Amino acid sequence: MIVMKTDATEEDIQRVVAEVEASGLRADVSRGEFITVIGPVGDERKLAFDRILTFAGVKEASMVETPYKLISREYAKFFGDAGAHTTVKIGDVKVGNGEPVIIAGPCAVESRAQIMRMAEEVKKAGADVLRGGIFKPRSSVHAFQGLGASGIDDAKEALTWLKEAGDAFDLPIVTEARGESVVELVAEYVDLMHIGARNMYDQDLLVQVARQGKPVMIKRHFGASIEELLSFSEYIAAEGNKDIILCERGIVPMGKGKSFTRYTLDLSAVPVIHNETYLPVVVDPSHATGHRNLIFNMSCAAIAAGADGLMIESHYNPAEALVDGPQMVTPDELKEIIDTCRIIHRTVRKH
Amino acid sequence: MIVMKTDATEEDIQRVVAEVEASGLRADVSRGEFITVIGPVGDERKLAFDRILTFAGVKEASMVETPYKLISREYAKFFGDAGAHTTVKIGDVKVGNGEPVIIAGPCAVESRAQIMRMAEEVKKAGADVLRGGIFKPRSSVHAFQGLGASGIDDAKEALTWLKEAGDAFDLPIVTEARGESVVELVAEYVDLMHIGARNMYDQDLLVQVARQGKPVMIKRHFGASIEELLSFSEYIAAEGNKDIILCERGIVPMGKGKSFTRYTLDLSAVPVIHNETYLPVVVDPSHATGHRNLIFNMSCAAIAAGADGLMIESHYNPAEALVDGPQMVTPDELKEIIDTCRIIHRTVRKH
Amino acid sequence: MIVMKTDATEEDIQRVVAEVEASGLRADVSRGEFITVIGPVGDERKLAFDRILTFAGVKEASMVETPYKLISREYAKFFGDAGAHTTVKIGDVKVGNGEPVIIAGPCAVESRAQIMRMAEEVKKAGADVLRGGIFKPRSSVHAFQGLGASGIDDAKEALTWLKEAGDAFDLPIVTEARGESVVELVAEYVDLMHIGARNMYDQDLLVQVARQGKPVMIKRHFGASIEELLSFSEYIAAEGNKDIILCERGIVPMGKGKSFTRYTLDLSAVPVIHNETYLPVVVDPSHATGHRNLIFNMSCAAIAAGADGLMIESHYNPAEALVDGPQMVTPDELKEIIDTCRIIHRTVRKH
Amino acid sequence: MIVMKTDATEEDIQRVVAEVEASGLRADVSRGEFITVIGPVGDERKLAFDRILTFAGVKEASMVETPYKLISREYAKFFGDAGAHTTVKIGDVKVGNGEPVIIAGPCAVESRAQIMRMAEEVKKAGADVLRGGIFKPRSSVHAFQGLGASGIDDAKEALTWLKEAGDAFDLPIVTEARGESVVELVAEYVDLMHIGARNMYDQDLLVQVARQGKPVMIKRHFGASIEELLSFSEYIAAEGNKDIILCERGIVPMGKGKSFTRYTLDLSAVPVIHNETYLPVVVDPSHATGHRNLIFNMSCAAIAAGADGLMIESHYNPAEALVDGPQMVTPDELKEIIDTCRIIHRTVRKH
Repeated sequence: MIVMKTDATEEDIQRVVAEVEASGLRADVSRGEFITVIGPVGDERKLAFDRILTFAGVKEASMVETPYKLISREYAKFFGDAGAHTTVKIGDVKVGNGEPVIIAGPCAVESRAQIMRMAEEVKKAGADVLRGGIFKPRSSVHAFQGLGASGIDDAKEALTWLKEAGDAFDLPIVTEARGESVVELVAEYVDLMHIGARNMYDQDLLVQVARQGKPVMIKRHFGASIEELLSFSEYIAAEGNKDIILCERGIVPMGKGKSFTRYTLDLSAVPVIHNETYLPVVVDPSHATGHRNLIFNMSCAAIAAGADGLMIESHYNPAEALVDGPQMVTPDELKEIIDTCRIIHRTVRKH
Repeated sequence: MIVMKTDATEEDIQRVVAEVEASGLRADVSRGEFITVIGPVGDERKLAFDRILTFAGVKEASMVETPYKLISREYAKFFGDAGAHTTVKIGDVKVGNGEPVIIAGPCAVESRAQIMRMAEEVKKAGADVLRGGIFKPRSSVHAFQGLGASGIDDAKEALTWLKEAGDAFDLPIVTEARGESVVELVAEYVDLMHIGARNMYDQDLLVQVARQGKPVMIKRHFGASIEELLSFSEYIAAEGNKDIILCERGIVPMGKGKSFTRYTLDLSAVPVIHNETYLPVVVDPSHATGHRNLIFNMSCAAIAAGADGLMIESHYNPAEALVDGPQMVTPDELKEIIDTCRIIHRTVRKH
Repeated sequence: MIVMKTDATEEDIQRVVAEVEASGLRADVSRGEFITVIGPVGDERKLAFDRILTFAGVKEASMVETPYKLISREYAKFFGDAGAHTTVKIGDVKVGNGEPVIIAGPCAVESRAQIMRMAEEVKKAGADVLRGGIFKPRSSVHAFQGLGASGIDDAKEALTWLKEAGDAFDLPIVTEARGESVVELVAEYVDLMHIGARNMYDQDLLVQVARQGKPVMIKRHFGASIEELLSFSEYIAAEGNKDIILCERGIVPMGKGKSFTRYTLDLSAVPVIHNETYLPVVVDPSHATGHRNLIFNMSCAAIAAGADGLMIESHYNPAEALVDGPQMVTPDELKEIIDTCRIIHRTVRKH
Repeated sequence: MIVMKTDATEEDIQRVVAEVEASGLRADVSRGEFITVIGPVGDERKLAFDRILTFAGVKEASMVETPYKLISREYAKFFGDAGAHTTVKIGDVKVGNGEPVIIAGPCAVESRAQIMRMAEEVKKAGADVLRGGIFKPRSSVHAFQGLGASGIDDAKEALTWLKEAGDAFDLPIVTEARGESVVELVAEYVDLMHIGARNMYDQDLLVQVARQGKPVMIKRHFGASIEELLSFSEYIAAEGNKDIILCERGIVPMGKGKSFTRYTLDLSAVPVIHNETYLPVVVDPSHATGHRNLIFNMSCAAIAAGADGLMIESHYNPAEALVDGPQMVTPDELKEIIDTCRIIHRTVRKH
């Protein structure tokens, strides 16, 4: 990491960038109010930090070993705001440093009428952002893969419905971009790009999504450590896109015998990520638990743990949902969750 | 499970018990206000339920396949209180169905002065029960094993200190009974017997502890599923002791690389256990996280998830604690945790 | 699954296919010597099996619930060879039902000279197929990503070197296709397409790789169950490509504390996969253990467990390898492994 | 660890021992042919190594941080046999440094006739040691717990049967000592004390078993790392009993969905334990897989991985076994396993 002096000129900065690039790395240039920091992307062992230290305008230059330096609290501290966290904007909705943001909607977009009605219902319940899956990742090729799987025209139509629903009720929208071939298409429509848990390790997808110039929400894989989530999020930051929201959605349950939840929600990930990075964190209790009657408690717990938001699946008639019915809450239940969570958030925030 | 008619006589009941015992099983007799239920302990396939159904006073008789029927909500429902949960008393402190109970104190009793001072401090902070380890389970034979490990006289002395400290500040006390040889000794002094996570699978210890006539707190092993925790708790209930408190204290972290917490707290265990059993659940954020700066958030999250209490390690000077210093909170921090948790509890309870 | 009568006509078959497709599913048509089986790809609940049963030429028609029916032993049994396993050809090398196949080479292609020399050395040691990574999946964006990461021209050059090396020493070649954008390029050069463990869940990549008309080797993700490996392999089969080789390369190690291996090789996966499917299985002891001094024993164990082959990283000078040096064996060590494994294979095969 | 000079006198040794004990630790004194090593048991930070270095007869004195120093290869190296492994004797049967040792028999002793017949059958099949469970650890209090669970007289009778069967066919015997209360009883009868996987963490049981003066076999818990297995084995060594056999029997399976095996056998544990300690390792494929049709392959794989022996459950009529029928092999299958394993062992040993 190379910290420039406060009086470093643009020319000084460019000379360092040129040196970094000449060594085969890329340069991430972060300009604070008073200071500029250059983070090399790639194998830093190729860089002659001693030499760079002698350049005009360079204050500090040293290697950082962590695999997630660009998103780390360490990186932010050079700008004097080590304690601060980033606020990421989804449309006009701010995530981080304020009220918890509620992303809600059905697991999958099923029809224009369904998503339009759901948008209305979640808006009334108090949600801030509308979700709706169009390209569903599934464990079985024999399961419903979302309307987007039927072809480009169907995908566009479903994206249009989602956008219309969001516009109609003033809700920014988010959907998952599951494969590289649909990234650009999805980016045309949504306010937030979503990388699903199964794709967390897909570095090529991460890079392509990062380049769309939209904020990105990346979910932790159910077999991944927190460190891996951070290391793969760094792929997004390394493209110059730091509008990143991290999402905890549960890990594989431990131990022998029957499991009472689909996954095990790791809420300690929330304060840990806040300690390690400046990025906001949301929690998805729907996929984590897989059971409607656990969503209220786990939503409250997530906010108490410090989460900046929640992603909750909701349907006006869970029994007829094409995917994930058992984990959907009704709009009434959603409202109760949101109301209680807002009180808990204020209680905890005073701390 | 055999449900007796409301007008069944004591003789009817005893005849069923005799039949169960004649088949080589034991009989757990639960007498409600209007109804008596007999739960066979052992391999129910040996019982002739068809024959028992013909006995006088028998209303229902059928096999229950679950490994934890005596502690299940199903079992309680015969008494008409399927929605209710048990309240377990630690001394005069009630766990379940009310204010969250705070068990606090140092990881290990180190001296009379230390435990006396800690008792005073945790009482002032708002704690309800005093903890202090005397027989510490350790992964390494080369690590400090608690004052109790030096011999019976040292163990008695440490237990006396703990009891004096509890008495002086009107706090019931709890300590871990680590091996079968110390169970009776521990039972003489404490108000709550504690079975450590490493010993959850030790069915012989469970049976012996259950027989002491004191309430028992059993911790989930870090490699155990919730179902296993319930199955092993059933060993306690099968001895006729249903004053059982379950404790979630974290599972082995998932995934590759560095872990930021000692264990991964599984807070979904709280509502799941409440769904499956009538027993109260407490959460131990200290051992789960291993880091002082995560205890506040995870305590709040545990209460928001519905926990009936918390077990928190505290020390007036964490830096000089003989065991687990990095995870101890100061009494001031403890007070803040307790105060915030009480508000969250009231917020969530309205639900 | 729809089994046609032995005298079913092509017209009969096409009518069933049309019916399946009319219901929104695809149809996998497998023609044996005497019998044809049609496997619907997609949600079978949409199919009217009762109706199809009345079609001319249809012998059996019923739903199969398993997520991996097209690769299952059940599917093969209609052709009368339930006990048999598929032989997959990599160039002229046959995998399955014969001598264990050894895939060897460096983790990463580093230069033309390096891969040419390694090809010569592994050929001499007795290897059958040459491996060499060009697009390396890495946990850190700051780590070396393979020569292919520098751009399309570098990628082509490295692929050319790999192909030249294979041709020079009569070794078919394999490399990993890491992202969708390079699939077609890789397919032009290699004899076997390799899907890395991190990408096992990437169904879009699987589909695209499957369509290249080359055999595919898919590695089990380190957080995946065997059932998940089979379910995702089904995505390949569903594209009509059944030249699939499964690869076990280790799961995340269990428990607290230091791990002595990078991953935990699950050798029971070998006989389990042989029981469940008709596909060959190879084992990668290099990535699984991460330590050169464990490769000999784990290679022998894999073959004793019934593996159809091994994938072993080798380098003439492990100390100077750009990636994974500590787990590379020298060509001399490789020869000893191969020779011993061939004896063990003959010993076990007699069973 | 304190290494004495070759000419150190007994007085010199005793002075070091006295110093160690005066610091509150115990002293493990290992006398080699030429050299004596004193291993302090307990918290070494209390020892003044600098001071001990000045004692007469002391050659080296320094702290060893590993939690398993007494069983480590490092410890053995002072005796000049760093490459050698211990041979542990079960009766007259030698485990380690020779032919693989086969421990076989039924999961549970069911009757005198059953164990007598099984002894004859496993002897004919080529087994070396007879196993038979009398105190069965079970996940459910409602399951059969072994004949020993009915009371002390039944336990003695079953132990007598096991011993008679062993004597009749010249097979040393092993059974599990499940709780502290039966340790002495078991020790009276058996040639090898067995600590079950569920009890691996039970340090009090380990200590008591170690003190019986019999060799001890300790199984790895299914949630334990290899490091934990070694750390808990150190509790046995710290009692002066180094006749320890380690047993790998599988860890909790990874990932979502159905598991095809009861546990996941971690065969890399075999060479890892051989690298880290001087102790022999056996593998139990029966409990690990839980399926008869996987035992042959996993037994062969274990021996190929370098195991010093196998523990295999066998029954002349698996269908009628009271416990674990599905994982029992018949005596004929056992013979085939043993014969094949002996060939593999000779093949691998040449390495």
